[in-house]
Amino acid sequence: MRSRGWDAVILTGSDPHSSEYPSERWKQVQWLTGFTGECGDVVVTPDHAGLWTDTRYFIQANKQLEGTGVALHKMRVPEQVPIPRWLAQTFSGSEPVIAIDGLCASDAFVSEIRNACAGCDMVSVPDLLSTLWQDRPAIPQTPIFTVDPGESRGKRLLRLRAWMSENGCAWCLVSALDEIAWLLDVRGSDIDYNPYVISYLLVGEDSAYWYVLKEAIEDPVTEKTFDELGADGIELRRYDDIEDALGNLDEPLLMDASVLNAHLCGIVREPVDRPNPVQMWKAVKNPVEVSGMKESHIKDGLAMEKFLYWLDKSMENERTVTEWDASVKLGSLRAEIPEYRGDSFETISAWGPGAALPHYITPRTGAPVLEARGLYLCDSGGQYYSPETFGGTTDITRTVPLGPCTPLEMEDYTLVLKGHIGLAMAVFPYGTPGPRLDALSRIPLWSHKRNFGHGTGHGVGWFLGVHEGPHDIRQNMNPAAIVPGMVVSDEPGIYREGQFGVRHENLLLCVDAGTNDFGRWCRFEPLTLCHFDTSIIVRELLTKDELSWLNAYNSKVYETLAPELPGPVAEWLRTKTAAI
Amino acid sequence: MRSRGWDAVILTGSDPHSSEYPSERWKQVQWLTGFTGECGDVVVTPDHAGLWTDTRYFIQANKQLEGTGVALHKMRVPEQVPIPRWLAQTFSGSEPVIAIDGLCASDAFVSEIRNACAGCDMVSVPDLLSTLWQDRPAIPQTPIFTVDPGESRGKRLLRLRAWMSENGCAWCLVSALDEIAWLLDVRGSDIDYNPYVISYLLVGEDSAYWYVLKEAIEDPVTEKTFDELGADGIELRRYDDIEDALGNLDEPLLMDASVLNAHLCGIVREPVDRPNPVQMWKAVKNPVEVSGMKESHIKDGLAMEKFLYWLDKSMENERTVTEWDASVKLGSLRAEIPEYRGDSFETISAWGPGAALPHYITPRTGAPVLEARGLYLCDSGGQYYSPETFGGTTDITRTVPLGPCTPLEMEDYTLVLKGHIGLAMAVFPYGTPGPRLDALSRIPLWSHKRNFGHGTGHGVGWFLGVHEGPHDIRQNMNPAAIVPGMVVSDEPGIYREGQFGVRHENLLLCVDAGTNDFGRWCRFEPLTLCHFDTSIIVRELLTKDELSWLNAYNSKVYETLAPELPGPVAEWLRTKTAAI
Repeated sequence: MRSRGWDAVILTGSDPHSSEYPSERWKQVQWLTGFTGECGDVVVTPDHAGLWTDTRYFIQANKQLEGTGVALHKMRVPEQVPIPRWLAQTFSGSEPVIAIDGLCASDAFVSEIRNACAGCDMVSVPDLLSTLWQDRPAIPQTPIFTVDPGESRGKRLLRLRAWMSENGCAWCLVSALDEIAWLLDVRGSDIDYNPYVISYLLVGEDSAYWYVLKEAIEDPVTEKTFDELGADGIELRRYDDIEDALGNLDEPLLMDASVLNAHLCGIVREPVDRPNPVQMWKAVKNPVEVSGMKESHIKDGLAMEKFLYWLDKSMENERTVTEWDASVKLGSLRAEIPEYRGDSFETISAWGPGAALPHYITPRTGAPVLEARGLYLCDSGGQYYSPETFGGTTDITRTVPLGPCTPLEMEDYTLVLKGHIGLAMAVFPYGTPGPRLDALSRIPLWSHKRNFGHGTGHGVGWFLGVHEGPHDIRQNMNPAAIVPGMVVSDEPGIYREGQFGVRHENLLLCVDAGTNDFGRWCRFEPLTLCHFDTSIIVRELLTKDELSWLNAYNSKVYETLAPELPGPVAEWLRTKTAAI
Repeated sequence: MRSRGWDAVILTGSDPHSSEYPSERWKQVQWLTGFTGECGDVVVTPDHAGLWTDTRYFIQANKQLEGTGVALHKMRVPEQVPIPRWLAQTFSGSEPVIAIDGLCASDAFVSEIRNACAGCDMVSVPDLLSTLWQDRPAIPQTPIFTVDPGESRGKRLLRLRAWMSENGCAWCLVSALDEIAWLLDVRGSDIDYNPYVISYLLVGEDSAYWYVLKEAIEDPVTEKTFDELGADGIELRRYDDIEDALGNLDEPLLMDASVLNAHLCGIVREPVDRPNPVQMWKAVKNPVEVSGMKESHIKDGLAMEKFLYWLDKSMENERTVTEWDASVKLGSLRAEIPEYRGDSFETISAWGPGAALPHYITPRTGAPVLEARGLYLCDSGGQYYSPETFGGTTDITRTVPLGPCTPLEMEDYTLVLKGHIGLAMAVFPYGTPGPRLDALSRIPLWSHKRNFGHGTGHGVGWFLGVHEGPHDIRQNMNPAAIVPGMVVSDEPGIYREGQFGVRHENLLLCVDAGTNDFGRWCRFEPLTLCHFDTSIIVRELLTKDELSWLNAYNSKVYETLAPELPGPVAEWLRTKTAAI
């Protein structure tokens, strides 16, 4: 830093595509600090090294940063000081030179710093760590295949071109990997848990160029994919050529500066900065996608029920099972499903105190042994696809008693379920933004002065990312409405550090609920099919309506899954889903 | 317009101080179109005249605009086209000259138009209508008196000067009339229902200038007020001199362009545009103000119960009572309170179909007669102040059956009450913005696919405006938190055009609810004291907790008010508040 005259260096936890799970190559924050959370940015000055992360990771960050000299800066708390403001305060009165890896930071973030820090000089240094990080991994290149989501890439590109024409632009740059996968009906495995292909897509009025890494791929499926794309008029280009392509384009280009990386933003000659409609189109599932999601959840539910049965019997028979063993068992049950393409995120398998960390990482070795008491929490999901049958993405959390529970565990368990049901039962006006529904899942907890630090719900893709926008249900001001066809998770929780954690999560499909004098209405239909344990419910805490919802849901789980379960599991499920 | 070369003229329903209730002089929209709603702006072009107003006034506007040739443009609906966008579409491709009364439009509004309508020329014409409107009323000048809110103007100005110094500004311009009244501890009657003095306040580091109309006032109380202010170092200036004063000021001036009128904004030489903290300070009541609000609500509740008793007996004795008679009766009961200083807004007294208009104006002559069946709705409030006792502002809505009700009336009545109670019972984390609580009052209605088009709650001042910011509870993205000391209304409703309307409104005081492992908590305490009629409640629609809340509230009303009510009224109230 000194030799280069930099007063501060910023490294983000992001990649050039604003991906949620950057591949190993871009885990710069982890390499530098040891922190493995999904969300973290680092600022280094001559006097200070700090990691910025949010409520989900405070406990984890405190542990992982111990002894590193890196300070934790808390975000999503009332007293938060975000990086731009921190830099402005730290360099108040001077005009600092701030280096940032412009490939791995959004243009919006860089602009924010520039605005906050009057007079600062922002230097974009692509691959900033490369000289220090000797064995830095390469950008992944995995086989690329096509999917059939019930709408062809031709139609999807037409929709985009119509929108481009309405916005008076001859070109549009798509850099978000899930949007590219959706537009081109392609999938790969470049990113953990997300079936994406690392690439950029440049769409013109009559042409489309896909900037993709393919040097290392020798694979008949990929060849077939490229042939198919070629037949649809999509030309392949080298990934690194995007810079030159943008530099040579002298017509107006639609791009979204809030997601496009600052480095490429700086190259575009005639930028038209506008959010992309692809995110919204992608979020509203078509009938083929909806039916694939439903089928995926039936198969996923079968695996989950087999898993919970196995867990119950293991405890009954006093078998030694660690958190990791349980996670492996669940994975193996999902892997029996022919359409299974891997997990949609890393399984959280946690007993007692581990479950108090909402984003706990189950250790491969030395994992805690499950005790036959208290609560066990498992948050997991699968990616499913077969061209012959169906595709979809799942995400489910169940918290179950492994033996006797304390009154507090039972009360927390019930209150969280009450919150889950409160949102699941909601009927709401068409056009309601997700954050306006957030209180419905929290009010039963708030009434008892309990709360949780994460969002209530996130969007989920169709055989795409387990987290997708534009909608969510959380404590923000996101104006995106939850509309029919969207999928959103419903996952309130309570976490008691050092003791236990509770979270109940289903995926919900937003559906039309009719129109009357008061307007158009929406409601939710649970996609997830796996019973909620009723044995430790504090019945008085639930209203009549909530009990009816719970009994009807458990009964639907039994009726849907039992015919496809082995006899003993079906019989066990019958008792677990008996009305209370 | 033609002779002046204007392509469009904009008239707003506002005054130079962004007041909610402009005085007669500034009712330009009403003079031009006949529309009397509280919110409406007009645009006139050679081909079109349009009125922009929101959901609250659609029915009223349709009636009042009939035959005027003025078209209704609906706001707060999904398909809304606000004035700036409408102008941009109408004059697309040309560069229109747009005239606007810059004194009566915020700078923010003018900027919005300028940004939307590329190339337009905005001409600010103060008092634009003056040549056409021959007998235009003068600016009101009423006696000015001081109040003691438990904090002196000296301390309040000190707080403001400390904030100015933190923001590096030698001067601050305050133009909102309630903020001036709050800062100087003064009141007047220049504005209907709002005890304000039309004026500007310019605060310097060691000086303060009050630009106020006083030419027409000859009154010992006003003289005494001016003497008191003089002793506190506040110098009087002529109202019209504010323009010159701002024009001559060459030091940085703090002002809020979102509320200051565009005309004065244009004069300021070194503007520092920042929201004013006075609005926030004013909203958080001190102990003297809280106790005054409580006392005001006891007295107001006594008047309300006497009124409801009179109404009950009138129906029982088959007396002919019109909506207007009822309104007059209630006013006369409030007027018996020594501290009464007038109503805090125009009483809505409406039976049946009239109550279906959330902002119904009860006609003075020919008002409908109350029928001994169905629902009667009364929304009213008082301003109270005496230097010897207490001060405060009230706002209450009760809907009561005047005889047999239909099942639908009973169901709507109960669902709205359920919504009211849902918000009133809420416990929530410190720092929660009001809009995040809005769904709590709506979900019981939503569950039955019913809704209401207005906000759930607005802030209320201490012997100031019945509507005040920064907080509210409605379907917007207002980030202002509801914090201890704030007062907010809780007034869900259901309106069925041509049939009936229901609204239940109490004012709630936000209070501290303690701190635990999960953070700091807030809850509400009802300020309003007047029973909710239980005779038409559909009991099965309420939960155990909601019933307990209702019985406890009604019992508190009886215990607090009965000792001060005449024997027969107290006895009647005992039966009305019996637990159900």
